[in-house]
Amino acid sequence: MERKDRYHIAILGATGAVGRRMLSTLERRGVPVGEVRLLASPRSAGTRVSFRGQELVVEAVRPESFDGVDIALFSAGASASEEWAPVAVERGAVVIDNSSAFRMHDDVPLVVPEVNPHALAHHRGIIANPNCSTIQLVVVLHALREFGLEHVTISTYQAVSGMGQRAVDALLEEVRRTEAGERDVTTVFPVVKQDRHVPMAFNVIPQCDIFLDNGYTKEEMKLVNESRKILEMPSLRVTPTAVRVPVLYGHAESVAVRFREPVTVAEVRERLANAENVVLVDDPASCAYPHPRMVEDRGETFVGRIRQDLEDPRTILLFIVADNLLKGAAWNAVQIAEKLIEMAG
Amino acid sequence: MERKDRYHIAILGATGAVGRRMLSTLERRGVPVGEVRLLASPRSAGTRVSFRGQELVVEAVRPESFDGVDIALFSAGASASEEWAPVAVERGAVVIDNSSAFRMHDDVPLVVPEVNPHALAHHRGIIANPNCSTIQLVVVLHALREFGLEHVTISTYQAVSGMGQRAVDALLEEVRRTEAGERDVTTVFPVVKQDRHVPMAFNVIPQCDIFLDNGYTKEEMKLVNESRKILEMPSLRVTPTAVRVPVLYGHAESVAVRFREPVTVAEVRERLANAENVVLVDDPASCAYPHPRMVEDRGETFVGRIRQDLEDPRTILLFIVADNLLKGAAWNAVQIAEKLIEMAG
Repeated sequence: MERKDRYHIAILGATGAVGRRMLSTLERRGVPVGEVRLLASPRSAGTRVSFRGQELVVEAVRPESFDGVDIALFSAGASASEEWAPVAVERGAVVIDNSSAFRMHDDVPLVVPEVNPHALAHHRGIIANPNCSTIQLVVVLHALREFGLEHVTISTYQAVSGMGQRAVDALLEEVRRTEAGERDVTTVFPVVKQDRHVPMAFNVIPQCDIFLDNGYTKEEMKLVNESRKILEMPSLRVTPTAVRVPVLYGHAESVAVRFREPVTVAEVRERLANAENVVLVDDPASCAYPHPRMVEDRGETFVGRIRQDLEDPRTILLFIVADNLLKGAAWNAVQIAEKLIEMAG
Repeated sequence: MERKDRYHIAILGATGAVGRRMLSTLERRGVPVGEVRLLASPRSAGTRVSFRGQELVVEAVRPESFDGVDIALFSAGASASEEWAPVAVERGAVVIDNSSAFRMHDDVPLVVPEVNPHALAHHRGIIANPNCSTIQLVVVLHALREFGLEHVTISTYQAVSGMGQRAVDALLEEVRRTEAGERDVTTVFPVVKQDRHVPMAFNVIPQCDIFLDNGYTKEEMKLVNESRKILEMPSLRVTPTAVRVPVLYGHAESVAVRFREPVTVAEVRERLANAENVVLVDDPASCAYPHPRMVEDRGETFVGRIRQDLEDPRTILLFIVADNLLKGAAWNAVQIAEKLIEMAG
């Protein structure tokens, strides 16, 4: 990418939960933005969205949409990315893709700026934004890697907004109907395009995304494979369980990390207190720890409940929380754009 | 306890969430009940409750309340148990206590009937009912113990009813006020008598019960200590994280069990399918697994998401769900009463 004073930005999927936050994050973080082009499927075209006091109209995406665009932020699902990313690259844009379409491709960097910004140097037009639950995990693991990461056991508590704005509305609808006395209300959970739906109101569902042949869900295997790629530790052991909870925004993760050597709580706290974009909230005596409602609309990763395993001094337990739509998606994508701009010219 | 045709039963804490379910469980399971005496603090005395078509009036507890009582079911909190259990025993009753007051006492059996009914043989008048999150865990661990239990890593998803009926009402109130647009609504979570309250609506809180000096919560240490006592495995490794979720009824647990030898999913399924009072719900292909809304009002322990660790053939992952007020409290207590009756005379 060439060095410029202002960069033309396109957002594909501009009307979605993540797309809207990509726009607001561009605004909040003060990226030197020139023209902004908001793109979506023909169905969503015509929607009006405000940006820096102006009203922008969402256009139906077409090949010419990417002419003159420097950076295209994609968040319209894997099939839209597969269709439009090559087009955008051909027209000269660098694509930062929030879908899973290219994440595990060998020639596509999968980037969390606090962890592996160096991977950006070798992109070929497409850069992948990792899965939400992976991003907040690797931000913390990276800060502790000097102790020798060996095995990560993780159980997640994932917000419904990870399934998009529709799922936020669906949970609120389920809650209202359940409170009104209706029984067994189901809408779109755990997977919109699945025959069998399960109540999400006042429930937890041990399924995020579809099941794979090995008995794990796609979300669980993302935690394994994406963490390994981003941390550049192909043999890191990850034992994942992904669970959806009736939370609107903010993923939480209960994590046990076994290191190669014994590690103290004080050492872990010290590293995390000094880690980039990590907020340490960890004071059991005053009942301070992170929780999803605390992190809404924040770009950092929050961590607390830090304690040593009762018997194994090499294992540390943590509770990690971040806004899945911001650090888990839009914020991380905009951070990648900023790194590209920093590296330009 | 003497053999009789009908047994006189008292319930202390009869107006609480667990006390009411003790009564309905007595009714459902067909225990040979003679007289039933419902007891509570003076504040709750006078409440009317129906039992087998009759209306019973709750009395204020006093020493004479236990005269002629064969079995006293206690669920009125630890300090009420400390005060009244010795009185009830002195008056000739056997106390089955749902509080934490006596659980770790050496001379008090801590019993889950599917696991250690033999411990009942040596009681001295008081039998302790374990903590809700422990009961459902040990039912499953016991069924798998022949494989050599070595290390259990557990993250819980605990319903608010574990804090009593007041917490159920409080969550519903928080949800209503939050939906109405009120911000940062807090009521009684995570601990009623704690200065600092945290929103529970659309949130998860990594604190159940108070913090201890070692950085773990009391709930987490119950999982460790009670499991060891019930399973009679004083050196079993347990790594616990206890989290409250906005669910009304039903605790869920994400569990990784490391065994001494490699174990297959088929072997685990076979043992659990044949285990007493365990319901296997485990068919990823048709998205079948247990969840809290499925187990409401059921006395069994449900288990699914059974899979081998991706790298360690000795580790099996499971998702365990049970109604915390039934198997986790009232149902288990009544099962203990039935065992006592079976053993009588």
